[in-house]
Amino acid sequence: MQQTKPHTLSGFMELLPGPQQQMERMMAVLRETYALYGFTPLDTPVIEAADVLLAKGGGETEKQIYRFQKGDSDLALRFDLTVPLAKYVALHYGELSFPFRRYQIGKVYRGERAQRGRFREFYQADIDIIGDGKLSILNEAEIPAIIYQIFTRLGLKRFQIRVNNRKVLNGFYESLGLTAHAGDIMRTVDKLDKIGPEKVRTLLTEEVGISAEQAEEILRFMAIRGDVLPVLERYRGRSETFDTGLDELRAVVTHLGDFGVPAEHFAVDLTIARGLDYYTGTVYETILPDHPEIGSVCSGGRYDNLAGYYIDKPLPGVGISIGLTRLFYVLNEQKMLNANLPVAPADALILPMSPDLAPAIQLATRLRASGIRTQLYAEDKKFKAKMGYADKLGIPYVLFLGEDEIAAGAVSCKDMATGEQIQLSADALVQHILAGLAEKNCGPIIQPD
Amino acid sequence: MQQTKPHTLSGFMELLPGPQQQMERMMAVLRETYALYGFTPLDTPVIEAADVLLAKGGGETEKQIYRFQKGDSDLALRFDLTVPLAKYVALHYGELSFPFRRYQIGKVYRGERAQRGRFREFYQADIDIIGDGKLSILNEAEIPAIIYQIFTRLGLKRFQIRVNNRKVLNGFYESLGLTAHAGDIMRTVDKLDKIGPEKVRTLLTEEVGISAEQAEEILRFMAIRGDVLPVLERYRGRSETFDTGLDELRAVVTHLGDFGVPAEHFAVDLTIARGLDYYTGTVYETILPDHPEIGSVCSGGRYDNLAGYYIDKPLPGVGISIGLTRLFYVLNEQKMLNANLPVAPADALILPMSPDLAPAIQLATRLRASGIRTQLYAEDKKFKAKMGYADKLGIPYVLFLGEDEIAAGAVSCKDMATGEQIQLSADALVQHILAGLAEKNCGPIIQPD
Repeated sequence: MQQTKPHTLSGFMELLPGPQQQMERMMAVLRETYALYGFTPLDTPVIEAADVLLAKGGGETEKQIYRFQKGDSDLALRFDLTVPLAKYVALHYGELSFPFRRYQIGKVYRGERAQRGRFREFYQADIDIIGDGKLSILNEAEIPAIIYQIFTRLGLKRFQIRVNNRKVLNGFYESLGLTAHAGDIMRTVDKLDKIGPEKVRTLLTEEVGISAEQAEEILRFMAIRGDVLPVLERYRGRSETFDTGLDELRAVVTHLGDFGVPAEHFAVDLTIARGLDYYTGTVYETILPDHPEIGSVCSGGRYDNLAGYYIDKPLPGVGISIGLTRLFYVLNEQKMLNANLPVAPADALILPMSPDLAPAIQLATRLRASGIRTQLYAEDKKFKAKMGYADKLGIPYVLFLGEDEIAAGAVSCKDMATGEQIQLSADALVQHILAGLAEKNCGPIIQPD
Repeated sequence: MQQTKPHTLSGFMELLPGPQQQMERMMAVLRETYALYGFTPLDTPVIEAADVLLAKGGGETEKQIYRFQKGDSDLALRFDLTVPLAKYVALHYGELSFPFRRYQIGKVYRGERAQRGRFREFYQADIDIIGDGKLSILNEAEIPAIIYQIFTRLGLKRFQIRVNNRKVLNGFYESLGLTAHAGDIMRTVDKLDKIGPEKVRTLLTEEVGISAEQAEEILRFMAIRGDVLPVLERYRGRSETFDTGLDELRAVVTHLGDFGVPAEHFAVDLTIARGLDYYTGTVYETILPDHPEIGSVCSGGRYDNLAGYYIDKPLPGVGISIGLTRLFYVLNEQKMLNANLPVAPADALILPMSPDLAPAIQLATRLRASGIRTQLYAEDKKFKAKMGYADKLGIPYVLFLGEDEIAAGAVSCKDMATGEQIQLSADALVQHILAGLAEKNCGPIIQPD
C-alpha cells in the first residue's frame, strides 16, 4: 500500500493520553465553576460566513484569519468566541433573557507565525454577562470572584487578579486635557513593566508629544501602589468620568471582599488598559507572580456595545477569557501539573485467568456499575506483558480471577503502587478500590508550590 | 455604525440555551460511560494537512471535504474521527500501549447538500479499541454492551442492536462460488428493507448477473430470523471463512449475555454489511423500532488494518460511532427529549431586597460552595420583571433577602413550580434546595414512551 507520512500541523496541540487526561480535568473544573455561577453553556459553529465574522472590521486579526471559499460561500474559522457571541445574541435577541450569562469553551483559529508555545488552534474558555441596555456593577465585581474560584479550584496558590477601570484612566487624562492623546498614552504606559518609567517618559514627551509636566503627572499616577483607593480620592472632582470610574472601582473592590476573595489575590493596578477600542469600565488581568514571563492568563473587562455592528440595541456586558491551550502548555512546560494525579484510562484492569470469561465479564459489569472505570484484558499475552501493560498505563489496581478465586467467590487485587496483593469478596473489592481512588484523586491539578 | 445582518450558516446546528443544556447532558452521559469502560479521551486537531487526511483516498467523501490553502499549506477539515485516529496511532505508535482504547467526541465537517436534518458540521462520538497485530474477540462483544449501556443511561427503552459478521457473509458467498460478486451482492441486499425481496431478486439476477438459484439461496439466507445461530450451524463446513465467522458470531452473542444485555435489545441480522472495503468481522447497527425512518443511530465494526496507509504495522481494531448531532436533532424533532428535566442556567436566583448587597453575596457564595448553581440578580428592575426573568428561564428557586430576612438570619425561598414560599435558615435552605434538585434532575434524558 502506498504510504503517506503521518504528521500533525505545527501550531496544533495534540496531546498524548496522559496529558490529555490532565487537560480534561482542567476543562471539567472550568465547566463546573462557570455553571455554579449561573452561566449556561453555548456551542456555536467553528465556521461562520466571512462577512459575519469580519463585520466589526479586523485589524491585526484579519491577517491571521483562516478564510476560504466552499462553492459560492466565503467562509472563515472563528478567531475568538466574542464575535460569535455577538452574532448569537443579535440573531437570537428575541429568544434570550437578559442578563444573559453564557460560558463557552471552544477552539479558535489564528494563523500566527509558528513558534514555540504559540498555537494556531487553541481553546478559549470565555464567560460573558450581557445586559439589555443596562447592567448592574455587581456583575463587574463577580467576574474576578469567579477567576479566584477557578484558579483556587485548579490548585494554584500564587496568582493575582489585577483590576482597573477605564473611566478612571479616561477621566484622569481628560483632567489633564489629554483626551485626544489618551489612546497613544495608554499604549505607551502599557510598556512600563517592560521598559521602565524613564523610557516611558521619553516616549511620552518625544513620540506622543505631551509636556514633561504631563508625563511626570502620568508617571506619578501610574506609580500609585498598595492601598490605591484613598490616593485616588485625592483626584476626585476634576472629571465626572473619573469620579464615576472611581465609584465603580470602589464598588468592585468592596464587593470582592464580600465575595470572600482574599486581599493577597487582587490588586488595583492603574497601568492596565486592555483592548483600547472595546472596554469602557472595569478591566482585568491575572498574573502568576512567580512566572511574569507568561503574562496574563485570564483577561477581560466591561464593554458598552457588544453587537453594534449587527443590531441596533445597546448590549453592554462584561466578560473574561482564559487562553486554555496556552495556559496548559505553560503549566506543563513549567512542570506545574500535579504528576501524582492518576492519568490512566482505567482504575482497574481485570485479568481473567480461566477459559470461561463469564465471571470476569460479570465482575467488570459490577465494578462499572459502582463507578469504577474498568478494563477487561483478554488478550493472548504472557503474564509479564499483561502486568507491564497495567504498569505502563499507570492503572492502579490489577484484578486476577482464576479458578481458585471463582471457586472461593473472591477476587485477587494487586495494588500496583504498593505491590500488595489481597483476596477480597466482590463487595469488599468495590469498597477497597473506591476508598483507594478517593485518596489518589484528591490532590489539586496544579501542584502545590 | 454600518451593520451586517447576523446569520448562522445553513447546515450548522446552533442551539438555544435550553436545548443546548439537553445536548450537554447527552454528551456527559457519553463521556462518563465511555470512561467507565476504560476508554481514554482524545482530542485531535480539526484541521489536518490535506495529504494526511486524504491518504486513504476519498471516494464519495472527497467531494464533500472542506479543503483550502493557507499560505503554502494545503489544509482540510476532518470529515470523520477515524482517519485522525489512524494518523494519531501511526504517529505516536511507540508511545502508546496496546490495546489502545480511546474515545473522542468532536466536530467533523462534510459539505453535503443542505437539507433539513442534514448537517455540514456535526458531532461524532467514537470509541475504538486498537490492537497491535492481534485483538481478542472479547472486544467485539464488549462494544454492543457499551451501546446498550449508553442508550439505557440516556433513558431509551426501545432500541435494538443488530449484529452480523462479515466473515459469515464472505464465507457464505464463497460457498456459492460468488466471491467475485460479493461486493455487488451486499450492496443489493442492503436494499432489502427498502425495496423488498422481489425487487432484490430481480436486481441480483438482472444487474449483478447471478443465477436464479443463487439469488434464491441468498434470499433464503437473508430471511433467517429469530434464533439465527442454530440455523447457521447447518451451513457449517462449506467454507473455512464462514466457520470462523460463525464461531466469532457465537462468541459475541454468548458474551453479550454475560454482559447482561437483555435479549430484546439485540439480534443477529444477516442483512447488515456496513462499509464494504473496511470492516472484516463483527459489524453493528442500532435502530429504534418505533422510528425506522431514522436508520442506524450507532454503527461500526471490526477492521483489520486501521492505518496501513501511514504505517507498516497491522493494527486491527473495533469501533463504533454515534452521529450525535443528527441523533439529537431527531430526538428533538420527535419530541423524545424529556421536557421535565431542568434546562435553566441556574438552580437558584437570589434577589437582594436591601441596599447592602453583602448578605446576598455571602448567601450566593454559600450556595455555590454546596454545589447549587446560583445567580445573583442585582439589576435595577421592577419586582415583576425579576420574577418574570426567573420564570422564563425556568429557574426553580427564587430567594428573597430583605431587611427582615437578614435581621432574622433567614432567607425566603419561593418554589417556582408550586408557588410555595417559605422562610428558612441558610443551612436548611441548602438542604431544601438540594433535595428538590435531586428530585427534579432524576429523570432520564430521553423521555419514557
